[in-house]
Amino acid sequence: MAGHDHASDITISEAEARALALDFLIADGLGRAQAEAMAETLVKAQRDGCKSHGLQRLPGTRDTMAHPRFNRAADPQPEMVTPAMIRIDAGYGFSVLAAKRGLPLLIAQAQSLGIAVLAVQNGFHSTALWPVVEEIAEAGLAAMSMNPTHDWVAPAGGSKGILGTNPLAFAWPRADQPPYVFDFATTAAARADIALYRNEGRTLPEGWGLDRDGSPSTDPAAVLAGAMLPFGGHKGSALATMIELMAGPFIGDRTSAQSAAFDQGASAAPLHGELIIAFNPAVFGNTSGTDAAETVLNGIRDQGARLPGERRHAARAQSAQCGIALPRALHARILSLMPQTPSRLP
Amino acid sequence: MAGHDHASDITISEAEARALALDFLIADGLGRAQAEAMAETLVKAQRDGCKSHGLQRLPGTRDTMAHPRFNRAADPQPEMVTPAMIRIDAGYGFSVLAAKRGLPLLIAQAQSLGIAVLAVQNGFHSTALWPVVEEIAEAGLAAMSMNPTHDWVAPAGGSKGILGTNPLAFAWPRADQPPYVFDFATTAAARADIALYRNEGRTLPEGWGLDRDGSPSTDPAAVLAGAMLPFGGHKGSALATMIELMAGPFIGDRTSAQSAAFDQGASAAPLHGELIIAFNPAVFGNTSGTDAAETVLNGIRDQGARLPGERRHAARAQSAQCGIALPRALHARILSLMPQTPSRLP
Repeated sequence: MAGHDHASDITISEAEARALALDFLIADGLGRAQAEAMAETLVKAQRDGCKSHGLQRLPGTRDTMAHPRFNRAADPQPEMVTPAMIRIDAGYGFSVLAAKRGLPLLIAQAQSLGIAVLAVQNGFHSTALWPVVEEIAEAGLAAMSMNPTHDWVAPAGGSKGILGTNPLAFAWPRADQPPYVFDFATTAAARADIALYRNEGRTLPEGWGLDRDGSPSTDPAAVLAGAMLPFGGHKGSALATMIELMAGPFIGDRTSAQSAAFDQGASAAPLHGELIIAFNPAVFGNTSGTDAAETVLNGIRDQGARLPGERRHAARAQSAQCGIALPRALHARILSLMPQTPSRLP
Repeated sequence: MAGHDHASDITISEAEARALALDFLIADGLGRAQAEAMAETLVKAQRDGCKSHGLQRLPGTRDTMAHPRFNRAADPQPEMVTPAMIRIDAGYGFSVLAAKRGLPLLIAQAQSLGIAVLAVQNGFHSTALWPVVEEIAEAGLAAMSMNPTHDWVAPAGGSKGILGTNPLAFAWPRADQPPYVFDFATTAAARADIALYRNEGRTLPEGWGLDRDGSPSTDPAAVLAGAMLPFGGHKGSALATMIELMAGPFIGDRTSAQSAAFDQGASAAPLHGELIIAFNPAVFGNTSGTDAAETVLNGIRDQGARLPGERRHAARAQSAQCGIALPRALHARILSLMPQTPSRLP
């Protein structure tokens, strides 16, 4: 939380962070609308202490934009296929602009119909899902979102990767507080964490993955070359399969295996679809129902269990007060990858 | 699977099993439509080898019908609140008739709009969720269903029950095979399994529950008096919370705590709502998408991992060939609770 007090961190304002990201993306030729959407989302994550999905992703956008199919000029526009089903083709640009442009129509249709779907198609996806569901909840709606990734994950009882890390995000609107929001991968551990174990020469806890032969392994390098495992055994595996089907074939887009095949070694962000569902609790809900939701959420917190999102909100409050923390080395790396150093940065 | 070969089992036809359940329910004064829906669902579970949700539930329907608020004459009718949001009030009868009567409208609306919701409200719920999602998938749609229960489950990191066992069921239609279907409680273990450990004098595996003081316990009696735990740690706990909110306040119905309070020691089946969402994969999907789903599901099975539902389908095939197995003692108990023994039963 207090990373910005470290000598290895610098502190910048939210506006400065956005300008840094925007300048970086535009310097590589990304269209302004795409660059603004991506900068906004990366800065939100950095601000909320989600460093893995923050400005650290900026250098990697170069690899994604270098993919032969990446479209820097993509200009996605939503299309209402039915009153409850909206599609937006990210056009081989980053998913984030497509999701952003689809949200107003999704929210409007869900408000009137009670439920609506937004399918983001053909997008390079490199951001967290929670900013999208949080934005929907801030409009008074509940929301779910999910996507496939690459086929790094074996099903429970299986031997090789066929599922993605398949995150599920959910948000529920609250009257006087930030929305209840969670966003988790359906794997036992994040791929980045396994890489960290490898880099630090540590062995993995049991149950995180399999080696290339499909045998359980605690060697991070073997698991990265083999397959990760879902969280929660057969139940988590079933959930990951549901996400694979719903955020892939249901929305007419790629499965995790198809996304991996598309990459062809480019090490770009995975190219696939994203399913976003918005729900209006006012259609069936009533005052008693709303109070009941608060009773559940306050009751969880009051017994000392952490509500997902609490760490993010604490980090957000600190960023608002003290500025956004950014590792000095990351800042230097970002600047070094840019043709010119914007003068307005520290 | 082969329980019907045991001397302790009898074997009856599906028609006989339905007649037995129907006679039992009608003998207690349950309206014919409710009795038929309940008999159908219990027999489906018995046929598919899901004994915990099969005819073993029949004697317990007496306790539920003895609840002062139970309505033997409930005659639920669906109401289209918006084109995508259908509500059906079970009217303090069993949920199962309401779900059955709501399905045709749900399926029709989801077919045209792409997505639709059915909220079953005010129903005594004592059946599995999978028969409903399976029926939707047999109509070519994907489906999710969820419901709260009683507040037996503590959140991960918490100390006392506030969530239900909150099952999630999902079905995906397949062209030449039965639908892909799963249905699991979001707890580490089923409540019935913990009771079984108690009855057999065994200690529980770690992580299944807490005692009354909120401390981890492997004593089944202490956990039944204390709180169960979600599967999969914080992720399973977040999922259970989502279900609590979506199958409670979102549909204007009770949370697990409100359902437990309503019971007032009657030991009836939990009274609450059920959320059913149907999705039409044809709206966004394409041939490639459909094939991709088959590639995922066949790929999971081909690497030796079990697909959920496989055991049920094997039991179903065996029941079709050899008849439905029923423990002799259960059969005798059911008959003993009825005023007269129907002559058509073995």
